[in-house]
Amino acid sequence: MTTIDPAPRALSLLGLGDMGAALGHAWLDAGHPLTVWNRTAGKARPLAAKGATVAPTAADAVAAADLVVVCLLDDASVDQVLAGTDISGKDLVNLTTGTPGEARARAAWAAERGARLLDGGIMAVPPMIGVPDSGAYVFYSGPKEVFEAHRETLAVPAGAVHVGEDAGMAALHDVALLSAMLGMMSGMAHAYALFRREKTPPARLAGPLADWVAGMAASYARELAEHLECGDYTRDVTSNLAMMVRANATLLRTAEEQGVGTELLEPYMRLMERRLAEGHAAEGTAGVVDLLLR
Amino acid sequence: MTTIDPAPRALSLLGLGDMGAALGHAWLDAGHPLTVWNRTAGKARPLAAKGATVAPTAADAVAAADLVVVCLLDDASVDQVLAGTDISGKDLVNLTTGTPGEARARAAWAAERGARLLDGGIMAVPPMIGVPDSGAYVFYSGPKEVFEAHRETLAVPAGAVHVGEDAGMAALHDVALLSAMLGMMSGMAHAYALFRREKTPPARLAGPLADWVAGMAASYARELAEHLECGDYTRDVTSNLAMMVRANATLLRTAEEQGVGTELLEPYMRLMERRLAEGHAAEGTAGVVDLLLR
Ligand SMILES: NC(=O)c1ccc[n+]([C@@H]2O[C@H](COP(=O)([O-])OP(=O)(O)OC[C@H]3O[C@@H](n4cnc5c(N)ncnc54)[C@H](OP(=O)(O)O)[C@@H]3O)[C@@H](O)[C@H]2O)c1
Ligand SMILES: NC(=O)c1ccc[n+]([C@@H]2O[C@H](COP(=O)([O-])OP(=O)(O)OC[C@H]3O[C@@H](n4cnc5c(N)ncnc54)[C@H](OP(=O)(O)O)[C@@H]3O)[C@@H](O)[C@H]2O)c1
Repeated sequence: MTTIDPAPRALSLLGLGDMGAALGHAWLDAGHPLTVWNRTAGKARPLAAKGATVAPTAADAVAAADLVVVCLLDDASVDQVLAGTDISGKDLVNLTTGTPGEARARAAWAAERGARLLDGGIMAVPPMIGVPDSGAYVFYSGPKEVFEAHRETLAVPAGAVHVGEDAGMAALHDVALLSAMLGMMSGMAHAYALFRREKTPPARLAGPLADWVAGMAASYARELAEHLECGDYTRDVTSNLAMMVRANATLLRTAEEQGVGTELLEPYMRLMERRLAEGHAAEGTAGVVDLLLR
Repeated sequence: MTTIDPAPRALSLLGLGDMGAALGHAWLDAGHPLTVWNRTAGKARPLAAKGATVAPTAADAVAAADLVVVCLLDDASVDQVLAGTDISGKDLVNLTTGTPGEARARAAWAAERGARLLDGGIMAVPPMIGVPDSGAYVFYSGPKEVFEAHRETLAVPAGAVHVGEDAGMAALHDVALLSAMLGMMSGMAHAYALFRREKTPPARLAGPLADWVAGMAASYARELAEHLECGDYTRDVTSNLAMMVRANATLLRTAEEQGVGTELLEPYMRLMERRLAEGHAAEGTAGVVDLLLR
């Protein structure tokens, strides 16, 4: 399925903020002929110095290549920037962060105008872009054939992972991971807060904390997935809801002793208690997922 | 500092629930002469079959060895079980989960009665106990010399890590890690909830989700520790508070689109917003830790 690219392909890039600029440098460094455009024109200068063609308008940038990448602030800015351009016949890759719904609407909008759209969610910060083995990658969704056609080009700035034909899937994966990251961050914030008034330097907690969370991530993510898939939330459970809810009391008393607010822990504890009260003592925690659904 | 143990030392174990029984089997399997006691006497049978001496009362169990391990439900049960026993001259190791305050009070209580106390927080579930390379370990706190004197014995069921002379430190580490685990779990619960009504099987999310969280745990734990230690929460920040709060809006809109409640994300988002509103746009998220302190 993979196309052998004899020469780096030409593309256009609209949006040269921190992320867009990083993408642009990666493509130029890999030898791709690149046309760029940005609302604030000055931001194109470092890329022009490396050989990029600077388009005077967004319409000119779109016209300059068959593959058009946009990396703007949000969906509203994509709307404004592409409004006066002719995207018919183009393959449009939207690396602007948004919701699954926005991605689906943008794909329909592109189709009406004769373009094929891939939506992308970038799982990296700009310094990781174009750096081999940085771990940076992008979730893509939309027509698999469009992804395959541009795979080599897309893989230049960061790993390229296709997660579905439905345009919304990349954003859904992106937001799911960012949401999980906030949970991890909030748990670690609470952990460090417990130590804040102790003489123990916080660096002493960093190693055990990271090892604990990292060591549990894979098995917990797999347990949740398996339980949600099979519907039996008791299968192979080692710490059941009854035990965990009992342990919660110790966590709350400790927070109280250490003078730490419990607002980051309580919502999850309340859902565990609700599920337990509904008679699911022998389950793991997958029932909490269902309680989140409106 | 490490004592060379020519022969496995004798010890007593009070409490043969799931965890206590697992500990007992590990010590017996390693050849330690073991005396056991449990309120419900029948639970001692499998250990007796392996060579354990069953004490008729808790007082007899305490009297049978210089090293006495208790692993009971909670601090109240420790109080009840040890009430009629003579602990003077004993080294007491309390593996019952509790708060730092309970551990400190229990250490003082033991000292008044002529015993030295080590408190322990078990970071494992029973099936991991006594299994080499299972990753199981126990945080210990209390007199380092007591820890060193029994190090070999303590290391039999699980790794032994001393985290401070202050008896409360083991419980503090234990609860900090469990609190962080709840955060990770709540983040993953939200992530899976976003996918719940999609046709995509949840197993498709498990790998990326686990890699993302595990891949970020070490650098994030270190960043928080360094920021809290130096007091400059802007140092080497890649994603600043202003950017993260902007991204939160996309997370909330996505939850809304997918019909998922936002109660697990909002408390942390509110703290980020509060810190941002106080003028800290260029910081990372360490300021949230301070906002948790009462
Ligand atoms: N930075 C990251 O760590 C990161 C990580 C993952 C994903 N992303 C995503 O990548 C996208 C770009 O992020 P960034 O970090 O590059 O942001 P940024 O530095 O703030 O740049 C925003 C870009 O959007 C342009 N823009 C905003 N409103 C516009 C409008 N109404 N019309 C035309 N252009 C407009 C800006 O043009 P001007 O230069 O004229 O202002 C600039 O090119 C965002 O969707 C972001 O969520 C970023
Ligand atoms: N299981 C785990 O995954 C795990 C992990 C880490 C830490 N821990 C900690 O290890 C400790 C024991 O846990 P476990 O899983 O073994 O619990 P368990 O299976 O419920 O056993 C509880 C033990 O406490 C005894 N007990 C309770 N109340 C008592 C009382 N008033 N007087 C005398 N004995 C009493 C029980 O005796 P009977 O048999 O007579 O009821 C039993 O031996 C707890 O502090 C727990 O938090 C457990």
